[in-house]
Amino acid sequence: MEKREQLYEGKAKRVYATDDPEVVIVDYKDDATAFDGTKRGTILGKGAINNRMTNFLMEKLEAEGVPTHYIRQLSDRETAVKRVRIVPLEVIVRNISAGSFSKRFGVEEGRRFDSPTLEFSYKNDALHDPLMNAYHAVALKLATWKEIDIIRDYAFQVNDFLKETLLQCGVTLVDFKLEFGKTADGTIVLADEISPDTCRFWDARTGEKLDKDRFRRDLGDPEGAYREMARRLLGD
Amino acid sequence: MEKREQLYEGKAKRVYATDDPEVVIVDYKDDATAFDGTKRGTILGKGAINNRMTNFLMEKLEAEGVPTHYIRQLSDRETAVKRVRIVPLEVIVRNISAGSFSKRFGVEEGRRFDSPTLEFSYKNDALHDPLMNAYHAVALKLATWKEIDIIRDYAFQVNDFLKETLLQCGVTLVDFKLEFGKTADGTIVLADEISPDTCRFWDARTGEKLDKDRFRRDLGDPEGAYREMARRLLGD
Repeated sequence: MEKREQLYEGKAKRVYATDDPEVVIVDYKDDATAFDGTKRGTILGKGAINNRMTNFLMEKLEAEGVPTHYIRQLSDRETAVKRVRIVPLEVIVRNISAGSFSKRFGVEEGRRFDSPTLEFSYKNDALHDPLMNAYHAVALKLATWKEIDIIRDYAFQVNDFLKETLLQCGVTLVDFKLEFGKTADGTIVLADEISPDTCRFWDARTGEKLDKDRFRRDLGDPEGAYREMARRLLGD
Repeated sequence: MEKREQLYEGKAKRVYATDDPEVVIVDYKDDATAFDGTKRGTILGKGAINNRMTNFLMEKLEAEGVPTHYIRQLSDRETAVKRVRIVPLEVIVRNISAGSFSKRFGVEEGRRFDSPTLEFSYKNDALHDPLMNAYHAVALKLATWKEIDIIRDYAFQVNDFLKETLLQCGVTLVDFKLEFGKTADGTIVLADEISPDTCRFWDARTGEKLDKDRFRRDLGDPEGAYREMARRLLGD
């Protein structure tokens, strides 16, 4: 597979064309951003960990019946994935209150919900990714009701699988963000990444944060948190 | 029915106890506020118009099968209603983009949706009534899924009825906010008011605003807009 021109550079990844129009290469960076891009830094080794962790989880999710964009890992930081049109909704599942949920609704961090919540943010930098509900998404033609239902079902399926998988590694899954894409034939597949950049992981025993909150909140040694997650999940 | 001590004073209404523990009296004021209470003023005659318009519409909605808190009008500004515990969710239905929807999602005002949208705001002054979805409301135990379903069905039923009723008066129903309450026996009923304070009404032919936006946006003669709505709907 030949890596061709860069198609896109995001905050944490670059995407390249290949000789196959239906395949692109994702290249993970060590760059970290937070708070709507206002805080910037580097977490050494993050790109390789996020790439390998995402691929490990996506392979398992495929086996669980959740279609993904994953094709195959090319190197420590590079992966071939299906070319998709991203549905412009961030899909956030929460098991425990934290982050923007706690701030927005005046709830302390750490409250366990009886059932997980699901929410959408409109992927729009200029508008700062506002919270949006399914009616809004359909009214603005960002997705159809049928697509919303599929995305919702997959998101909860991912939560069930991830929660259980992480628990076996001594990690509590607090919340996470997913993105979905549509392939050329209109199939909805899980895209983007599943990593300490996009999930909140707490040590199940001590509550220690093992995710990007260590960077966001200056809690020290974010590299160590990413390495610890790689050790627990990938057996590094 | 005897009017006793004041139980509550809101931005646009006072509520009084009566000799019947299951009945309270609502007394409508001419006070107007906007933008989270930061803009304040008076719209002369508003209280009487909102009282009479709300009662007129609630009577009709009861006949359409939507239970309400309405009992009977006592005077131009006073109405006896069932005592309820308010569900702390503002329920907003939109047929056309305007106001906070347009601002939040970067959409021009006046875009007609294929189907109406429904959203919840968490009634919490300290948090500035944040947008919230049904999962959030259930997770925070503000309502059960069964109550959410009932509220949603009633809200769309109110929209169908109001849209048609107003169209016959040459008025386009853009959007509106409802509140629901629970009676002593747990029944969900429509509460609060339905008026130019809580709805966006546009003249169907000219697009002229006939609602509180005339006060919010300093468009001039809000009193005239309220009187015009009373003329068209109540035949004043």
